[in-house]
Amino acid sequence: MKTRVFVTLKTGVLDPQGKAIHHALEGLGFTGVNDVRQGKLIELDLADGTSAADIEAMCNKLLANTVIENFRIEPVSS
Amino acid sequence: MKTRVFVTLKTGVLDPQGKAIHHALEGLGFTGVNDVRQGKLIELDLADGTSAADIEAMCNKLLANTVIENFRIEPVSS
Repeated sequence: MKTRVFVTLKTGVLDPQGKAIHHALEGLGFTGVNDVRQGKLIELDLADGTSAADIEAMCNKLLANTVIENFRIEPVSS
Repeated sequence: MKTRVFVTLKTGVLDPQGKAIHHALEGLGFTGVNDVRQGKLIELDLADGTSAADIEAMCNKLLANTVIENFRIEPVSS
């Protein structure tokens, strides 16, 4: 059972990595970029019986820092 | 216009960050995790006229290292 977890910074939290990408894109001549935010994508390959509550616990305890980050869990249909 | 770019390591490329997450999950008592891979999620806020070819060029030139990484572009419906 495959599951994807998307971890993104909350709005209002500074994102220096995103700023650096934005700056580099402009340096390469790409115009029309208003904003860039970088997040994390974590692909989990789980045993079939893993419950949604377990996956949420993994996110809260380890995968995301819920003070500054949001997470979204998305099952992957195989 | 918002667009998400997912950058993932190609299969066969070692992922020490994913291995570390896997190990930490097991340390926290989560059983049934078979594999973890970590990738990047880049959220672009682009001017409305930006073409798909431009976005692909951004990925090839900067956002992904196409020797070891794959990327996937997904428009976000607002």
